[in-house]
Amino acid sequence: MFAGGDAAPILGIDPGVSCCGYGAIVRRGAQPHAVACGVIRTDPTVPLPARLALLAGELDQLVEELQPAAVVVERVLFQVNARTAISVGQASGLALVAAARRDIPVVQYSPNEVKLAIAGDGGAGKREVAAMVARLLKLPTPPSPADAADALALALCHAWRLRVPDTESRSDRLGAAIAKATS
Amino acid sequence: MFAGGDAAPILGIDPGVSCCGYGAIVRRGAQPHAVACGVIRTDPTVPLPARLALLAGELDQLVEELQPAAVVVERVLFQVNARTAISVGQASGLALVAAARRDIPVVQYSPNEVKLAIAGDGGAGKREVAAMVARLLKLPTPPSPADAADALALALCHAWRLRVPDTESRSDRLGAAIAKATS
Repeated sequence: MFAGGDAAPILGIDPGVSCCGYGAIVRRGAQPHAVACGVIRTDPTVPLPARLALLAGELDQLVEELQPAAVVVERVLFQVNARTAISVGQASGLALVAAARRDIPVVQYSPNEVKLAIAGDGGAGKREVAAMVARLLKLPTPPSPADAADALALALCHAWRLRVPDTESRSDRLGAAIAKATS
Repeated sequence: MFAGGDAAPILGIDPGVSCCGYGAIVRRGAQPHAVACGVIRTDPTVPLPARLALLAGELDQLVEELQPAAVVVERVLFQVNARTAISVGQASGLALVAAARRDIPVVQYSPNEVKLAIAGDGGAGKREVAAMVARLLKLPTPPSPADAADALALALCHAWRLRVPDTESRSDRLGAAIAKATS
């Protein structure tokens, strides 16, 4: 199901200042496995610069430890309000820098692209995405909180995108969704 | 005109990914002087993560070299569109982290607060602000480009805010503007 034979994980990051999700997957044969999953939280009562510095340090450490083959960061939608955009922009910028400083390729997908790839529906709810992530990664329960599940979904979405369309079957649901999304 | 006797400069930063303005001032007696002023540009043809990594490195170096007493960063307005907010958010986040990592206090002012303090009018144009910055700093010509002038204006705005209102004269134009802005 997955292309490539690189043992280095794919790291997904769902950027946020209060709660930043991360999730890393590797492929063993055709089966993707979660190797890291969680959230980085910062205390809302602490001044913003200190919160961002903490987030930057944690993201740096995460990328340093995992040495991912790619970092997949959720693209902020232009439809959100400016207050959200500033905050997500600040967090996503730190994630992009953590990867770029180590010459690790960065890929960005919109939430709709990820939902379409994972749940076959660009308008899928968070619960549906988390349930599909659990099924794809053979996890006993959906990853929680939602930001961690979203980060794993980003990594899975990118793993599927890496497939070579002309040499592999697209009969599965995700392949069809990707084909629809990219057509 | 200026409060405090700290020899460390005040560093203003007008955040932007394509063009990030910076300007630092120190006080010699009552007179503020510019000790650094310029812009950090990133190449729009280069991928965003690499541009942000370059900007982060330059901002880090700037703060490291100047060891400012305070870093003053323009606050992004919520009225701007989301595309601008994401980009400015990414750049401002890097500036806030560069300061916070060194335990340097960060202050943020809105563009209106700065214009009111410097030009006595919250709706002042860029040219008027640059002209007032030149006059206050006794520069032969207005600083250019506008992002560099805006960064000096941020530093000047903060220097004025540091004045102790009850013990110093407010007869000058800037003092009056600050009084109006903070009343």
